[in-house]
Amino acid sequence: MNSLGRIFRVSIFGESHGPGVGIIVDGCPAGIPLAEEDFLPDIARRKPGAKGTTPRQEADMPIIQSGVFQQHTTGSPIMIWFENQNTRSADYEKQRDIPRPGHADWVARIKYGGYEDYRGGGHFSGRLTLPLVAAGVIAKKILHQGDAPIDIQARIMEIGGETDWEKGLEKAIAAKDSIGGIVECVATGLPAGLGEPFFDSVESLIAHAVFAIPAIKGIEFGAGFRAARMFGSEHNDPIIDKSGKTATNHAGGVVGGLTNGNPLVFRVVVKPTSSTPKTQHTLNLRSGEVEPFSVKGRHDLCIALRVPVVLEAVTAIVLADLLLIAQQRPVCWPAP
Amino acid sequence: MNSLGRIFRVSIFGESHGPGVGIIVDGCPAGIPLAEEDFLPDIARRKPGAKGTTPRQEADMPIIQSGVFQQHTTGSPIMIWFENQNTRSADYEKQRDIPRPGHADWVARIKYGGYEDYRGGGHFSGRLTLPLVAAGVIAKKILHQGDAPIDIQARIMEIGGETDWEKGLEKAIAAKDSIGGIVECVATGLPAGLGEPFFDSVESLIAHAVFAIPAIKGIEFGAGFRAARMFGSEHNDPIIDKSGKTATNHAGGVVGGLTNGNPLVFRVVVKPTSSTPKTQHTLNLRSGEVEPFSVKGRHDLCIALRVPVVLEAVTAIVLADLLLIAQQRPVCWPAP
Amino acid sequence: MNSLGRIFRVSIFGESHGPGVGIIVDGCPAGIPLAEEDFLPDIARRKPGAKGTTPRQEADMPIIQSGVFQQHTTGSPIMIWFENQNTRSADYEKQRDIPRPGHADWVARIKYGGYEDYRGGGHFSGRLTLPLVAAGVIAKKILHQGDAPIDIQARIMEIGGETDWEKGLEKAIAAKDSIGGIVECVATGLPAGLGEPFFDSVESLIAHAVFAIPAIKGIEFGAGFRAARMFGSEHNDPIIDKSGKTATNHAGGVVGGLTNGNPLVFRVVVKPTSSTPKTQHTLNLRSGEVEPFSVKGRHDLCIALRVPVVLEAVTAIVLADLLLIAQQRPVCWPAP
Amino acid sequence: MNSLGRIFRVSIFGESHGPGVGIIVDGCPAGIPLAEEDFLPDIARRKPGAKGTTPRQEADMPIIQSGVFQQHTTGSPIMIWFENQNTRSADYEKQRDIPRPGHADWVARIKYGGYEDYRGGGHFSGRLTLPLVAAGVIAKKILHQGDAPIDIQARIMEIGGETDWEKGLEKAIAAKDSIGGIVECVATGLPAGLGEPFFDSVESLIAHAVFAIPAIKGIEFGAGFRAARMFGSEHNDPIIDKSGKTATNHAGGVVGGLTNGNPLVFRVVVKPTSSTPKTQHTLNLRSGEVEPFSVKGRHDLCIALRVPVVLEAVTAIVLADLLLIAQQRPVCWPAP
Repeated sequence: MNSLGRIFRVSIFGESHGPGVGIIVDGCPAGIPLAEEDFLPDIARRKPGAKGTTPRQEADMPIIQSGVFQQHTTGSPIMIWFENQNTRSADYEKQRDIPRPGHADWVARIKYGGYEDYRGGGHFSGRLTLPLVAAGVIAKKILHQGDAPIDIQARIMEIGGETDWEKGLEKAIAAKDSIGGIVECVATGLPAGLGEPFFDSVESLIAHAVFAIPAIKGIEFGAGFRAARMFGSEHNDPIIDKSGKTATNHAGGVVGGLTNGNPLVFRVVVKPTSSTPKTQHTLNLRSGEVEPFSVKGRHDLCIALRVPVVLEAVTAIVLADLLLIAQQRPVCWPAP
Repeated sequence: MNSLGRIFRVSIFGESHGPGVGIIVDGCPAGIPLAEEDFLPDIARRKPGAKGTTPRQEADMPIIQSGVFQQHTTGSPIMIWFENQNTRSADYEKQRDIPRPGHADWVARIKYGGYEDYRGGGHFSGRLTLPLVAAGVIAKKILHQGDAPIDIQARIMEIGGETDWEKGLEKAIAAKDSIGGIVECVATGLPAGLGEPFFDSVESLIAHAVFAIPAIKGIEFGAGFRAARMFGSEHNDPIIDKSGKTATNHAGGVVGGLTNGNPLVFRVVVKPTSSTPKTQHTLNLRSGEVEPFSVKGRHDLCIALRVPVVLEAVTAIVLADLLLIAQQRPVCWPAP
Repeated sequence: MNSLGRIFRVSIFGESHGPGVGIIVDGCPAGIPLAEEDFLPDIARRKPGAKGTTPRQEADMPIIQSGVFQQHTTGSPIMIWFENQNTRSADYEKQRDIPRPGHADWVARIKYGGYEDYRGGGHFSGRLTLPLVAAGVIAKKILHQGDAPIDIQARIMEIGGETDWEKGLEKAIAAKDSIGGIVECVATGLPAGLGEPFFDSVESLIAHAVFAIPAIKGIEFGAGFRAARMFGSEHNDPIIDKSGKTATNHAGGVVGGLTNGNPLVFRVVVKPTSSTPKTQHTLNLRSGEVEPFSVKGRHDLCIALRVPVVLEAVTAIVLADLLLIAQQRPVCWPAP
Repeated sequence: MNSLGRIFRVSIFGESHGPGVGIIVDGCPAGIPLAEEDFLPDIARRKPGAKGTTPRQEADMPIIQSGVFQQHTTGSPIMIWFENQNTRSADYEKQRDIPRPGHADWVARIKYGGYEDYRGGGHFSGRLTLPLVAAGVIAKKILHQGDAPIDIQARIMEIGGETDWEKGLEKAIAAKDSIGGIVECVATGLPAGLGEPFFDSVESLIAHAVFAIPAIKGIEFGAGFRAARMFGSEHNDPIIDKSGKTATNHAGGVVGGLTNGNPLVFRVVVKPTSSTPKTQHTLNLRSGEVEPFSVKGRHDLCIALRVPVVLEAVTAIVLADLLLIAQQRPVCWPAP
């Protein structure tokens, strides 16, 4: 469903062209300083406007509707609301019978029996990543607490196969097409022992959250797919000191499903934006014929450019949850 | 924790060198024919013995302890138990202070304050995939019900970079080292509309379950990481008929987090077995020095060889859950 | 936390004197006709204004912020928002250091380290039952679907020990004190077999939801506490026909944790409103002395009067969830 | 389903006349001393044999199958197994078509389409309370940790309306009938602030767990149903010192859903054993006629006698979960 997390739990709602989008953050500890302006830097990083991003302009002003009092979290659910202002539903109503390839139009119609909000993808919209970013800001505050802050940084590794991502983007502009990319995320300062073996492995939880971001189609930790061609003696990371530090980090900071105190490192692949300027073909549900069509509306040429801050956000949400869970497991008996 | 699923829910327990390992399957519909021999074919596929797999021999006989009566499921929790017979704890007790690189030895010690069962990885053992395979057999029965069975097949794509996996394995044997590989899984016959947007996307749920398998370090759906270099017009899969069939399947059968009626296709990378015959280095916790050491015990040279049936099992568990959830959402009002 | 339900899942948020209160309903099937006016009749039943209820006047206008399109549910999360208009925070700020007995003032202060929103109970307010009533309206629509509607009716059984509840209320008015009462809830039309043995017994789930209503301090099913004085031959309900109909209903419609097709019957006790007009004593946290004090603010004399519609709502939420879960368990194999 | 708890999580399985019954305890901290003999005192308290209890004799020897190593918990799931030895299935097979009133025979048959294990109630058996008692022993160990142990004591308040329960029992023996009773449970030493407002109120969680015990039909906290006849000034418990101690305890130790540091007090009603020696009537499903019948098998005359230790167990399970959850909410920012 639309919730994630065990102790620090987020629930999203809203549609692209409805009244707005929002999120509830439940299980957040009381006493964290929080004001609406705290969200603005990360929201700005997600904003379109740069080359290759959609010209749709939204104020994206977060409104805290609950859970904060006198500029601190109260321990009650925090609801953050973003009003939609710049909607153009008519763009979408015309194309109702022409399910756009790569989009959820057709599957949503099947799943919801024709009752889906089809305007701009409705609930299946990238606009829902906006409240995720807001929840990420709160999660990052939890991670930054104490003496040893946990820091998360995501950055673009390549666009269209080019590590100079400006160059990759030019390729797409020249081809009048959208383009994919790869984003890497690194979290440092993590204590060892977060996560669980098997179903709540750190890889399981991070991957679960990451695939909630539209357009992500793969994830790899540490050496990732390169590990398929490595020998064990190459891939294993020798432990070199009592803090668990390893000489290499092919495991990406996770062993046996648990953090090992080394940086958590993973990469995701972002598919090219489904809405490409190129003419494409799809089935016209009314005529029953496969027909050419062009995407209308305002879209990103390379959605990967806007992914880093969203990737940080879902990573922060997962890690804040794990950190809060870890704090509930005291070993009060003397060690053997 | 050690459970997965919302309606069809599995919970694993046990240790590598304790009394045994087992699983509870809760939420399984009543009336499915089930006997202990039904588990044997998939258990046999997981068994070691072939070139490149561990010489540890276990009978691996499943014992149904609850939830089955007169050879049919009753609707109550099914518990399946596997006794451990061929344990050699002493192998492990000696090396307590020498955490093996790539293994969970060190992180488990930190997480559990020294109380972990350190014999052969304890609960962090690949032996826990045995009950997963058993639960997968039950899940497959649910998927096979009705007129249009859902079929899941996993196969090895490459070992050590070689698509002829015998060749890849020879490479490892020659190098006296362990080796990684890639396994692909394909599920056919899925209805469109399974899954949810965002947190319960099919990719999220499959990835969550897949990373519960020890040694998996990456997953990609459809075109996967190749999508980073594709244009939108290339990657998009044109819909070509009313069943939702697409001309290509770069999406791997999932759009907007939902199945689209095309085959679900994903690949995983399996790291080389951490227990390599090669001499390695790690910290001796007693001496505080980094020291050379060799792995004792009985291990797989290439754990990827045993992954396919486990991958099928966790995929079946996720899909059975999604199928049962989907059946609870009738649209009883006339379509608009 | 602030969520309830497995498939039909509600999450509440908001504070008594903050911007407003609201609820997310996730997992609601698509295609249910729904408009804001549908909520008004049940909201009106919860409204104060009658003798014995608070003079605080709120418009209580529901605003559907997501999940509804063209007056039908879409299958996406439905968020319903109620703005607070008639707040008087100053009433509460003065009494910060005088925790009112029977209220959550002191426990909230301890739990949240002094960061709680203390205005009118903050998140611990009966005002949160307003969004519960709204979610109940949606749940009732699910229960009314199909040929055999499931109907839920709650009514006041006694106030202050009087079955003529006007008389009980007069007693309180005469005593210048608040007063408690008993409310009964009956659900008819339920199919047999909803619920699960043990932890998800119908009694467990109903009681869980019912105790979420502030002021409820007890619940009993069927004969309830009278069963303690009954013989088995008296209490047992003989089955008299193939539909499972029983001659008596001492079980209150639940046997072995499952509905048995007879009416679900339970009663709850509602404690007297904690805010009584009488002078009381409590600790002044500043002075450290036990002092007399009188409650300010606007309050119900008998909160039981407003409970029936809330009780129906949480019952409907639980039963809608159970009904949706039940629909996912087809027995597709021939009966033995 | 068959699981309960968020951090400290139990899952039960097994049938009355199958191979055995058992429980998984997941989320238990590592390092707790635990051996099989630790379970024996509470298991003995649940044992039949005294006047008014079933003559069925079982060894009830707990076998720890996982999660314990060198007599301490490891942090991995603990599975405890009890073999059934003294089964007499034939007793039940004969009466298949005569659903016993008060029992789950008929509802289970409907729910599971005739595939239920009908021997002695199958999974719907009171025998499943045996593993609950075992899990309760572990939970109590968690509650006893630290300087200020949390203690739980349940005791019989009345049998057949008599506070001298011997007398109540004599009444039943004289009447050749089974009889109901009331059991009270008190937990002392609880910190203030456990639980959550609304859905995870202490009352919600305790009631949820308590109604998992077969035969419980009602629960009341503190003054309970007497509160219906009380004025607010009577029911409110004045706070009299800085520890939150109250002059009276009509709230039963829970205010606003949270523990308030006073004893948690609640009472439950236990219906008379459904299997009474008296001749009863029920529908014969084969003949379609209502017929007289007598219960065969071995049964308790007053199941309430065996409830106290089970009630303590489920209470301990809930409180241990709440205690572990509470420990994960540090307020690390200075108080305002």
